[in-house]
Amino acid sequence: MPLTKAEITRLRSLQEKKHREAAGLFVVEGEKVVGELLGAKFPLVDIYATPAWTGARTVDVTADEMARFSHYPTPASVLAVGKITRPPLAAGALDRGLTLALDGIQDPGNVGTLLRIADWFACDRVLLSPDCADLFSQKVVNASMGSFARVDAHTLPLATAFASVKVPVLGCDLQGDAVHALTPLRDAVIVIGSEGRGISDAVRPFVTYYITIPKYGGAESLNAAVAAAIVCDNLRRVSK
Amino acid sequence: MPLTKAEITRLRSLQEKKHREAAGLFVVEGEKVVGELLGAKFPLVDIYATPAWTGARTVDVTADEMARFSHYPTPASVLAVGKITRPPLAAGALDRGLTLALDGIQDPGNVGTLLRIADWFACDRVLLSPDCADLFSQKVVNASMGSFARVDAHTLPLATAFASVKVPVLGCDLQGDAVHALTPLRDAVIVIGSEGRGISDAVRPFVTYYITIPKYGGAESLNAAVAAAIVCDNLRRVSK
Repeated sequence: MPLTKAEITRLRSLQEKKHREAAGLFVVEGEKVVGELLGAKFPLVDIYATPAWTGARTVDVTADEMARFSHYPTPASVLAVGKITRPPLAAGALDRGLTLALDGIQDPGNVGTLLRIADWFACDRVLLSPDCADLFSQKVVNASMGSFARVDAHTLPLATAFASVKVPVLGCDLQGDAVHALTPLRDAVIVIGSEGRGISDAVRPFVTYYITIPKYGGAESLNAAVAAAIVCDNLRRVSK
Repeated sequence: MPLTKAEITRLRSLQEKKHREAAGLFVVEGEKVVGELLGAKFPLVDIYATPAWTGARTVDVTADEMARFSHYPTPASVLAVGKITRPPLAAGALDRGLTLALDGIQDPGNVGTLLRIADWFACDRVLLSPDCADLFSQKVVNASMGSFARVDAHTLPLATAFASVKVPVLGCDLQGDAVHALTPLRDAVIVIGSEGRGISDAVRPFVTYYITIPKYGGAESLNAAVAAAIVCDNLRRVSK
């Protein structure tokens, strides 16, 4: 049964955050990313697929139809729709395990890479400040390489989340103690600011100490994802 | 004096690698990147600037002229031309200091980020296999955030460079010894392969041992630049 025009318009509209929020749905398109979400057993509401897609589907479409609602100049063979869920952060949750908190990371590729890093290092959760790239944007999901489906991520004002935290809050900054000197910490929050601006003024009062990655050469800064990965590697090394 | 049509065509043509190679010139456009290269005292052949650019220049142009040779949809106020230099790699150079060797890293953003990491960790040189992104492409230079001007980089077949190397060649792989267990090494080569393919068959015979970044969670791999940064951090920590 051919798709209605309204259905095609609806699928196309999910490219924009405001429409995703209104519908409570997000979309991912492409063989690789849909395969990753299926592999991670992420619940999908619908999977629109052309005959070229050999995996699971809920709706058969023609390549012509796909071209009409595709989010890309070159349509893929599969486009999946997922439900936006915003599980609340349980009270006291930050006091157990490792939390990676992203403070104003606006580049969606960086946010996706950070989810992947959190997944690699088994961070217990990721917090995103509301001015981070939208967790449910396709670029974030793609860049996370499937980690989107495995990481417990929450978007919320960091200052609210940190108000009653009892564990150390480590702020990654250009000035601070060398990350190599970290003492063992199994429970901690790591705050990563944006490259340009660093940690925001709203968050600084909650940082219990600042850590830095020792620099040996000339670059002025490191990419936020690179910095987070080095901190996680150092923290996991000492907290085993 | 207005620019000739031939001059405008020539400047535009430097977007493409074959024209850059033929002319022995590369181009960077934008206030930030030109400022970084000037800040690093990188020698520039020409600096075309509109009245909006307040820095150094060699040729005054109007905004209309800039729009005709700009490499971007939104023209910047400054576009600089630099000379492509390919200094030879001195015999035995790899046996002193830290070399970061990129094996088939095709994404220019990744190559630029890797130059920045090499700069931060004071790697003595970077080698790029010929199938890496072109060192002189604007995307690489931009992503390096000025490190392009500070890092000693060479594009050449890695197997040729490695043929007579005497120091350890560490291959970063998903299987190998934990990077946390690295013994102090002041002189070494670190090989980073592409995310999809890993270290190439041509390079594997020269790897003296494989190292890996311990994984604690679910992600299948780390981004090449993230992996390189963690290895450099571990190597610098132990070799101080």
